[in-house]
Amino acid sequence: MPEKLKGLFAPTLVPLDARGQIHEAELRRYISWLIEKGVHGLYPNGSSGEFTRFTEEERRRIMRITSDETHGRVPILAGAAEANVKETLAACEAYAEMGARAVAIVSPIYYRLSAESLYAYFAEIARHTPIDVTLYNIPMFATPIDLPTIRRLAEECPRIVGIKDSSGDLAFMMRMIAAIRPGRPDFSFLTGWDAVLAPMLIAGCDGGTNATTDAVPEVTLRIYDLCRAAKYDEAIALNYRILDIFDTMLYALEFPGGFRTATELRGFNFGAGRVPQTDAQVKHREEIRAKLERLLAELGIEQAASRA
Amino acid sequence: MPEKLKGLFAPTLVPLDARGQIHEAELRRYISWLIEKGVHGLYPNGSSGEFTRFTEEERRRIMRITSDETHGRVPILAGAAEANVKETLAACEAYAEMGARAVAIVSPIYYRLSAESLYAYFAEIARHTPIDVTLYNIPMFATPIDLPTIRRLAEECPRIVGIKDSSGDLAFMMRMIAAIRPGRPDFSFLTGWDAVLAPMLIAGCDGGTNATTDAVPEVTLRIYDLCRAAKYDEAIALNYRILDIFDTMLYALEFPGGFRTATELRGFNFGAGRVPQTDAQVKHREEIRAKLERLLAELGIEQAASRA
Amino acid sequence: MPEKLKGLFAPTLVPLDARGQIHEAELRRYISWLIEKGVHGLYPNGSSGEFTRFTEEERRRIMRITSDETHGRVPILAGAAEANVKETLAACEAYAEMGARAVAIVSPIYYRLSAESLYAYFAEIARHTPIDVTLYNIPMFATPIDLPTIRRLAEECPRIVGIKDSSGDLAFMMRMIAAIRPGRPDFSFLTGWDAVLAPMLIAGCDGGTNATTDAVPEVTLRIYDLCRAAKYDEAIALNYRILDIFDTMLYALEFPGGFRTATELRGFNFGAGRVPQTDAQVKHREEIRAKLERLLAELGIEQAASRA
Amino acid sequence: MPEKLKGLFAPTLVPLDARGQIHEAELRRYISWLIEKGVHGLYPNGSSGEFTRFTEEERRRIMRITSDETHGRVPILAGAAEANVKETLAACEAYAEMGARAVAIVSPIYYRLSAESLYAYFAEIARHTPIDVTLYNIPMFATPIDLPTIRRLAEECPRIVGIKDSSGDLAFMMRMIAAIRPGRPDFSFLTGWDAVLAPMLIAGCDGGTNATTDAVPEVTLRIYDLCRAAKYDEAIALNYRILDIFDTMLYALEFPGGFRTATELRGFNFGAGRVPQTDAQVKHREEIRAKLERLLAELGIEQAASRA
Repeated sequence: MPEKLKGLFAPTLVPLDARGQIHEAELRRYISWLIEKGVHGLYPNGSSGEFTRFTEEERRRIMRITSDETHGRVPILAGAAEANVKETLAACEAYAEMGARAVAIVSPIYYRLSAESLYAYFAEIARHTPIDVTLYNIPMFATPIDLPTIRRLAEECPRIVGIKDSSGDLAFMMRMIAAIRPGRPDFSFLTGWDAVLAPMLIAGCDGGTNATTDAVPEVTLRIYDLCRAAKYDEAIALNYRILDIFDTMLYALEFPGGFRTATELRGFNFGAGRVPQTDAQVKHREEIRAKLERLLAELGIEQAASRA
Repeated sequence: MPEKLKGLFAPTLVPLDARGQIHEAELRRYISWLIEKGVHGLYPNGSSGEFTRFTEEERRRIMRITSDETHGRVPILAGAAEANVKETLAACEAYAEMGARAVAIVSPIYYRLSAESLYAYFAEIARHTPIDVTLYNIPMFATPIDLPTIRRLAEECPRIVGIKDSSGDLAFMMRMIAAIRPGRPDFSFLTGWDAVLAPMLIAGCDGGTNATTDAVPEVTLRIYDLCRAAKYDEAIALNYRILDIFDTMLYALEFPGGFRTATELRGFNFGAGRVPQTDAQVKHREEIRAKLERLLAELGIEQAASRA
Repeated sequence: MPEKLKGLFAPTLVPLDARGQIHEAELRRYISWLIEKGVHGLYPNGSSGEFTRFTEEERRRIMRITSDETHGRVPILAGAAEANVKETLAACEAYAEMGARAVAIVSPIYYRLSAESLYAYFAEIARHTPIDVTLYNIPMFATPIDLPTIRRLAEECPRIVGIKDSSGDLAFMMRMIAAIRPGRPDFSFLTGWDAVLAPMLIAGCDGGTNATTDAVPEVTLRIYDLCRAAKYDEAIALNYRILDIFDTMLYALEFPGGFRTATELRGFNFGAGRVPQTDAQVKHREEIRAKLERLLAELGIEQAASRA
Repeated sequence: MPEKLKGLFAPTLVPLDARGQIHEAELRRYISWLIEKGVHGLYPNGSSGEFTRFTEEERRRIMRITSDETHGRVPILAGAAEANVKETLAACEAYAEMGARAVAIVSPIYYRLSAESLYAYFAEIARHTPIDVTLYNIPMFATPIDLPTIRRLAEECPRIVGIKDSSGDLAFMMRMIAAIRPGRPDFSFLTGWDAVLAPMLIAGCDGGTNATTDAVPEVTLRIYDLCRAAKYDEAIALNYRILDIFDTMLYALEFPGGFRTATELRGFNFGAGRVPQTDAQVKHREEIRAKLERLLAELGIEQAASRA
C-alpha cells in the first residue's frame, strides 16, 4: 500500500517562451530547484499550472517533462481533469504510466452540477482509474463539492485517497476531517489556502498544495516543519509574515500572475503568460513586481536575476 | 457587408450514440428538422451543445457536420472558444472556412478575469479573427462581461458584431442597447433567456439563441413573429405558455438534460449524455420526461416516438 | 370589497430639517405636489422612506402626516413592518385607523429566514390584521420570499392582496403572475424595479412603487398611461429615456440619496439625511446633483430652486 | 485606562414567558448561572439576543436586568445599535450609566452601505460616545466592514477598542490582527465563529462572543484555558468535539433557535420565541431537541429539567 499523501506539494507554474510555448528548459530548471529546496512533492496541471489554458497534448507534455525531471526524487500529484470521464480516465492512465503517485481531479468545469452528479462523476472515475485519485475542491472556480458527497465518496471508493481544498474555510476542513478520518485514516487532507497554512496544519491537515510554495518554498516548508515539531507559536508567527506577500501574489494580479511574477524574482523567466494584457496591465505588473521584491527582501529571501 | 444577425438561432444539442460518441446521422436529421421548422439560424458548440464536454477535434467535427447538413440554408453562429487565444483563433479560421456566418466566444472559462483582461482577450481575438465575432455573456457559468467593457469593445472592434446575453436581466439588456446601438446600429443583441423572450424582443432585442427553440421551435418562432408584427399582447400571452416547460427543462434536470429530454419527445434519440448518472437520477429523468410529455401536449405540440 | 390595488404608488421620501428631524411642512408640500402630478397612490415608510432609520414613533408620525395631507385624494399603502408580529399588528391597526388602503410588509429584517418561517410570519399577520396586506419582496435587503411561499400565502390568506417585488427579475414576476392570478384575480402585482417599468407593465403588472416616481412622476405616469393604452413601442421608447437617470439615482449615491437629490431639484429641501457623510461624500453628492440636473433637463423636466 | 477586552463573553439569549414577553426571573437565573460557570463577560442585545425583535424600550430593559443581576461580577459588552446615530448614541449613554464596560455596534442594518459610509457612521459614533465601542462585523446579516475601513477606524478613533467578527474567516482575522495590533496593542479581536474557536485563539484572538458559550460554557471556557496554557493539541481536540453540536445549534433550526433549545436542556425555559412557527416547525424542533440531548450527553454535560 502506498504511503499516505502528506507534506507540501508545489503546484507548479509553467514557464513560457517568447512565442507563448512551454519553455522546457526553464520548466526543468524550476522543477529541480523546487526539489532541491525540499518540497515534498509536485503538483503539475493544477490551477496554478493554468491547466485550462493548455491543450490536452500540452498538459501531457508538461507532466512528461515534470516526471522525467523529477526522476523519482519526490512524488507527483498530477492534475488530470479533461473534457469528460473518458478523456479524464485516459489522462489517469497516461499519468500512471509516467509514474505519478496520484491524480487530482477538479469538479467538471463551466457547468454547475448537483451533488448527485458530482458523486456520479467521481465515483465513475474511481471505479476505473488505474491510479489513486484526490478530489480537488475550489469553489471560486468550479462547482463546490459538499461534505456529504465527499464523505460518501470516501466511504465507497478506496481509490479516492484525499482531497485538496482551496475554499480557505477552516471550519469546513475540520468538518471534513471529523467526518472522514475515523473511517479512512489513510485519507489525506491538503489545504490550498496559504493564508492559514499553519492553522490548517495545527488543526489536522496532512499538508498542502500552495502556490506560495512556488515562490518561497523555504518559508512554507519551515511552517510545515514547525507544525510537525509542535512549535505552533513559531509556526503562527511565521504564517503572519507571509500574509502580505500571499495577498499581493493572489489579489494584486490576476491568478496566477502574482505567483509567476514573484517566482521570477527567484531567478526564473516565466514569460508573458497566455492571457493578453493591456499596456496598463503590463505597467501595473511592473509595480507589483517592485512591491514583491520588497516583500521578499523583508522575508530575507535571496533573489536572483532571471537568466532569460 | 453581411446582413445583421437577427432572428432565432437554435443552440443545437448533440446526439450521442450508445458508446457516448457523436451520433452523426441523428445530428443531421435533427439539424434539418430545425431548419424545416423555420429557425433563422443554428448555433453549434454553445452551452446547450456542451462544448466543454467534447474535445477540440470533436467540436470541429460537430461544426463540420452542421455546416455540411445546413448547406447554406440558414446562417451558422459557431461557438469557437478554445483553451487560449491562439487555439480560439485557429477555431475561428476553421469555422470561417466551413462557412460560418460568425463565431460566438464566451469569457475564458474557469478563472475569473478582471474587466481589463476580458477587454484584452476579446480585443486580441477581434484584431486577428477572419470572421465576425459575437460576445457570449453567461454569468452563471463564466466571468460576467460588464457593460463598460462591452461598450469599449463595440466602439473599438468592428469585427465584434453582437452579443448573446444569457443573464436574463432585461434591465441589463436595455442598458446595453441604450449604450451601444446609437453608435453601432449593426450590432446585434441576442437573448439567451427564454422565460422573457417576448419582453426582450419587445424591448429591442434582435433575436435570441434559446434552448427552448431546440424543443419547441414552433412556439418560439411564433413569439418572434408576433413581436415583429407588433402583436405584443399575443406574444406575451404565448410567452406565458412556455414558462412552465422552460422552467422544467432548465431546472428539473441538470443543464442541458431537460432540453435533451424534451427534444427527444419530438422523435430524436440523444442518448444518455456524457455526465454519469446514478440510478436515482435515471429514474428522476423518466419522471421529468413524463411531465414534459404532458406539457408538450398542453402546448398542442406533436410528439413522435424516437427512432433509435 | 375594496378596489384592486393598481397604478403607480410613490414610495415617499422623508424631508429632514437642519437638526435631522422630520420636516413636516416640506413633507406636506411634497405629498401634495405628488398628488397634483397625478400619482395613483402613496407609499410611506418603505425603503425609499428609510423606515429603518426612524423610530417606531416617527414612522407613525410620517403616516399620520401623509394621511392628513392626502385627505383621501389617493389611496395609501403604508409600510408597517416593525420589530415583531405583535408590533407589526399594532402598526396595522394604527394605519387602518389613519385610513390606509393597505399595508406593505417586508420579510423580517437582519436575520435570514427559511421559507417555512416566512410563511408562518406572514400567515400569522394575515390572520389578525384589520387591514389588507401586501407582501414586499426586496432580496437585496431582506430575505427573499420564494414563489411557492407567495403562492401558498395567496391561496390561504384572503387578507394578503398583493406583492411589491423589487427583485427586478421579470421572469420571476411572470412566474408569480402565472401561478397566482388564475386563482386570485384580485391579487395585485406591483414592480419596484423602475429600469424595466414598461416591460413589467406590458407583461402584466398592475402597477409599481418606484422611487423614480418620486423625482419625475410625469415620466413614469406617462409610461403607465402608454401601457394602459397599449402604445407599447412608445412606452418602451420612453422607458429607455429614464434608464440613465434611474441608474444615476440608484447607483451613484447610496440609496436613497440619489432619489433625494433628484427630487430636491424639483423644488424641495430634503436635508442631509440620517447617515453621516464624509467631506468626500458631500463633494461627490454635489457632482451627482449636477449630473442629475443635466439628465432632468434632457428629459424636459421643469426644475425649481429649493425653498429652504 | 480600562483593561483590554478579553476572554469569552456569552452573547446572552432572552427567555420569554408564555405571552412572548421578557421573562425577567428566568433571565436573571440564566445570567447568574453563566457567571457561576465562569464566563468572562456578558454580551446582551447581540444577534443571539435577537435585538431586532425587541423594541428600543425592551432592549434597555434587557440591559438593565443584565447589569443589575451581574452586579459587577463580570464586564458587560452591550449591543447598542439603534435606528440611527442619534438613537445609537442615546443607547451608548444609557448603557454607560448602567455600568457597561463597552458597547458593540453592528453595521447599519437592512441597507447595504459603502465603505465610506461605514467609516462615517462609526467615526461619528466614536466622536460622541461616552463609552468604549467595539465594531461588530457579521457579513451574513449586515453590510460587511472591510479591512481598510476597520484599520482606518482603529487608527483614528481611540474610543473604538475592538472588533467582534462573525465571518468565520480565519485569514480575515489574521489580516486584521496583522494590520492593527502593532499600532493599537489595546485593540481587542473577538471571534464569533465557534466552529474554529481554538484555531482563532491560537492564531491570536483575544477572546470570543460565541453562542455555544450560552449552552455549554464549560466546554468553550476549557478550550480558552487550554489555549492560554499553550496546550494547543488538547484545545484542537476539544474543538473537534463541539463541531457537531455547534452545527446542529446553528443550522438545524433558525438562528438562534438551536442555541435556545440547547440551553433549555441545561434547566431553563426560554419560551417559544418571537418568530411564529408552523406545526411542522414545532415538531422539527422536538426532533432537534432530542438530537441535542444526545450530543450534550456525549460531551458529558449535565442536563437539567426546565423549571417552568
